[in-house]
Amino acid sequence: MSTRTLAELAAELDGLVVGDAAVVIRGVAGIREAQAGDITFIANSRYDAYLTETKASAVICSRETRESPVPLLRVDNPYLAFQRIVRLFRPELFHAVPGTHASAVVDPTAVIGDGASIGANCVLESGARIGARTVLMPGCYVGVQSSIGEDGMVYPHVTIREECHIGDRVILHPGVVIGADGFGFAFDDGKYHKVPQVGSVVIGHDVEIGANTTVDRATTDATRIGDGTKIDNLVQIGHNVVIGKHCIIVSQVGISGSTHLEDYVVIGGQAGVAGHIRLGKGVKVAGQSGVTKSVPAGAEVFGTPAMALNLFKRMNVYLHKLPRLFDKAKSLEERLERLEASRLEQSKLEESRLEQSKLEQHAPKDKEAVR
Amino acid sequence: MSTRTLAELAAELDGLVVGDAAVVIRGVAGIREAQAGDITFIANSRYDAYLTETKASAVICSRETRESPVPLLRVDNPYLAFQRIVRLFRPELFHAVPGTHASAVVDPTAVIGDGASIGANCVLESGARIGARTVLMPGCYVGVQSSIGEDGMVYPHVTIREECHIGDRVILHPGVVIGADGFGFAFDDGKYHKVPQVGSVVIGHDVEIGANTTVDRATTDATRIGDGTKIDNLVQIGHNVVIGKHCIIVSQVGISGSTHLEDYVVIGGQAGVAGHIRLGKGVKVAGQSGVTKSVPAGAEVFGTPAMALNLFKRMNVYLHKLPRLFDKAKSLEERLERLEASRLEQSKLEESRLEQSKLEQHAPKDKEAVR
Amino acid sequence: MSTRTLAELAAELDGLVVGDAAVVIRGVAGIREAQAGDITFIANSRYDAYLTETKASAVICSRETRESPVPLLRVDNPYLAFQRIVRLFRPELFHAVPGTHASAVVDPTAVIGDGASIGANCVLESGARIGARTVLMPGCYVGVQSSIGEDGMVYPHVTIREECHIGDRVILHPGVVIGADGFGFAFDDGKYHKVPQVGSVVIGHDVEIGANTTVDRATTDATRIGDGTKIDNLVQIGHNVVIGKHCIIVSQVGISGSTHLEDYVVIGGQAGVAGHIRLGKGVKVAGQSGVTKSVPAGAEVFGTPAMALNLFKRMNVYLHKLPRLFDKAKSLEERLERLEASRLEQSKLEESRLEQSKLEQHAPKDKEAVR
Repeated sequence: MSTRTLAELAAELDGLVVGDAAVVIRGVAGIREAQAGDITFIANSRYDAYLTETKASAVICSRETRESPVPLLRVDNPYLAFQRIVRLFRPELFHAVPGTHASAVVDPTAVIGDGASIGANCVLESGARIGARTVLMPGCYVGVQSSIGEDGMVYPHVTIREECHIGDRVILHPGVVIGADGFGFAFDDGKYHKVPQVGSVVIGHDVEIGANTTVDRATTDATRIGDGTKIDNLVQIGHNVVIGKHCIIVSQVGISGSTHLEDYVVIGGQAGVAGHIRLGKGVKVAGQSGVTKSVPAGAEVFGTPAMALNLFKRMNVYLHKLPRLFDKAKSLEERLERLEASRLEQSKLEESRLEQSKLEQHAPKDKEAVR
Repeated sequence: MSTRTLAELAAELDGLVVGDAAVVIRGVAGIREAQAGDITFIANSRYDAYLTETKASAVICSRETRESPVPLLRVDNPYLAFQRIVRLFRPELFHAVPGTHASAVVDPTAVIGDGASIGANCVLESGARIGARTVLMPGCYVGVQSSIGEDGMVYPHVTIREECHIGDRVILHPGVVIGADGFGFAFDDGKYHKVPQVGSVVIGHDVEIGANTTVDRATTDATRIGDGTKIDNLVQIGHNVVIGKHCIIVSQVGISGSTHLEDYVVIGGQAGVAGHIRLGKGVKVAGQSGVTKSVPAGAEVFGTPAMALNLFKRMNVYLHKLPRLFDKAKSLEERLERLEASRLEQSKLEESRLEQSKLEQHAPKDKEAVR
Repeated sequence: MSTRTLAELAAELDGLVVGDAAVVIRGVAGIREAQAGDITFIANSRYDAYLTETKASAVICSRETRESPVPLLRVDNPYLAFQRIVRLFRPELFHAVPGTHASAVVDPTAVIGDGASIGANCVLESGARIGARTVLMPGCYVGVQSSIGEDGMVYPHVTIREECHIGDRVILHPGVVIGADGFGFAFDDGKYHKVPQVGSVVIGHDVEIGANTTVDRATTDATRIGDGTKIDNLVQIGHNVVIGKHCIIVSQVGISGSTHLEDYVVIGGQAGVAGHIRLGKGVKVAGQSGVTKSVPAGAEVFGTPAMALNLFKRMNVYLHKLPRLFDKAKSLEERLERLEASRLEQSKLEESRLEQSKLEQHAPKDKEAVR
């Protein structure tokens, strides 16, 4: 682990130092965990308050951040800048050894690119292709005629079944399953009969897929995940789903068969998306929502069944006002009862007055007479 | 990949051709993905509209389907018929080699049936039994005294712990875990103490279990899954759960301990079922529902806590009308206020009139007198 | 499998027999599954009703349990007592062989404690440390400089990535993934850029983690799980989460990044907890809830977004009364309309009477005159 002055880091990041540029940085940490000697970052000026609390020796921040008791390193994108220097102070511990481990079982027809690393106990079936510099950590399985592009990272115990195709610079975390059968059955004569799932999975470049996530193969054609899409742990992607580019799918989301996500869709944790629908470009789905219908581009949805975020918020306000509404209904009813009672009294009075006035109209002469 | 005429396929499927029986079929695909040369299918006449859009060269359909610009192959069950011919055009790429791979670690007391295939790096513990023609793909673990029946398919990285029993023609997808400990603890003296989980898992025939799904062993006795039940990916089946025959459990469902599902239950994705309850025969649970009480046979439930589908739909309509209800309450209140104000005025008028009439009643003589 | 008399079991458990102490016990089972010859237990007197139904030959129960047709064994904590004797009748089937299996791939710098068992196909990277008597079942991966304490049990296909530290007596069920990258990206120029996840995972003593559960490594610093915490299957623990001691996390729960759970928190199945919040000591979260804000110590929350259990229950009552509220609003409106109509009529009457009375006020003289 090397050390750098803040001035040296500023030069690497094309940033501007505010404060003591000679301060020596020995490590990186989050804003709350940072100790003396660490550099940290705040993603945006909303977190400026942390500047007075952090024990860090310097903070990477945006160009907007103004005052701070701790030296600042102003850059265009603090998060990106931070990630660039993290590896200076915390170098990768695991170094893949190029070549194929003696214990790996590799079919003679499999093709392994230059500098690729095939870990212990990996199995490569016939026609499997591993791109240059891609690392397969121990215990991975790559099925018949499947391929992984260049510079990929495949963590332990990943399963890639036959005829699946994965792009360059893809990261598959431990336990990922690519290309298991889609869930399709035909009901006949009191039993479910398996529908063969003969399609495949096609994954673009720069995709990352989280631990124990499952991406099912298509019934026919392919389940597709576009370039740059990032998927968290324990997510389920059903058969024939098509996911666009640069989507974010947070952990434990489930996407049912044949649904189509356009580019830049973001789906919060534990949300579920029904089958055969379409989420337009840039749609945002809140965590735990249940999306049952297609959503137009740019919309944000929330709840089960999912509705527009604005409507959801209003509904929530209304729901929390429900007790008061019940109270009001009761009070309205009481006031109404009083009015009705009073009206009834009034009616009786009217009636008696009418009676009276009838009497009076007939009476005068008699009265006169009496008088 | 072979080719067939539509007439040849009709003969194999016992179907009736409407249109050009000589058309040559070279492949299979879904109705939307199909290209010239493909045969596809529509499951029921609800999708007849696709017949005018598809690029397929022929469509398998039900006996009811009437008109089409594309040749039809009418059969009793289009979905089943389609699956029968899918394998003609898309033969299985993976061919298991009967016998035990040199890298597999097999206890001498394990019993392996005729024609079974034990893949690379598999581990079979003492007393494990693998039925005839069953395939264990690479990296599977079968525990002490566990058994799998005949003609099974066990994908890579499946774990079957000790003393679990699995029927014939069962499919276990990658990463499935059978027989992990149930989640049971006794709280005492500020700590949770593990309750030994000494029961087992018993799985019937023709069961399919999806990737990374977990089926816990029972505390005592057994967790049971009945014949023909199909379970999707990432599902959690708790200890001592009993699942009947021919159930469908969609991905990411969780079923808590000791709950009993009768036959033909269908549970939608991400639904949760509480422990120690019973879902009657044919119960349908909508996706994301939370079932907290037993449900009688044949009912459909929805929501959290789950309620009858009819009630849920009505509740949803009411919820969406809530804003209007608040508006109406406000307008009722305003109208009531006006009435009350008017009643008050009226009362004052009454009072003054009463006053007047009292005056008048006392007055006449005076008036007369005056007169 | 040995047999014991109830008197012998009572001596081992420091319990008191009520009934026939000479009854011979041959096995253990749950109260509903138990047959003649079995001993079972009831956790508390709430379940006393089962005493008349069970076929067991004896029942372990609390000191409070009074009458029973079946012999009782009264102890302080029936659940704990039961677990102590379960292993007498159902001894562990799997016996780990101390030492390292020939097929395991162990870096020469790895350190393995006395009596530890490293199963077939396990991989231990450089600097990995396995404590005394800890068992690694087949196919586990332990990364660079990671450590596991003493007396641990690691089931098949577990992945522990680099630099993660696990305490003593920890149980990791099959398919667990410890230390996969946290889900962190910086968006810039239309793409998501990976933020290196250079922190680690630190797990205390006596922790149990369920099958296929994933615990992500921290961005910097560590994701932490406290002593005695028990986590069920298919749970997602995000990066930089801190979980206290003796927490219970039921299956399929998701806890988002940087959230802090204090000691004795209990989270029901499928619940989701947002990032960067804090759940105080002893907080209970109901199943399927979505917790979006910090919760004070001792509170119980329910629903999405989660609210206090009391409020949730009231809301639920209100929700179920909604149809009646709509009916009431309608009836109030009708009554109001009648009142308004009647008021209108009244007004007209008033007016005509006023008119009349004006006439009368002008009329008298004429009348007099007429007279």
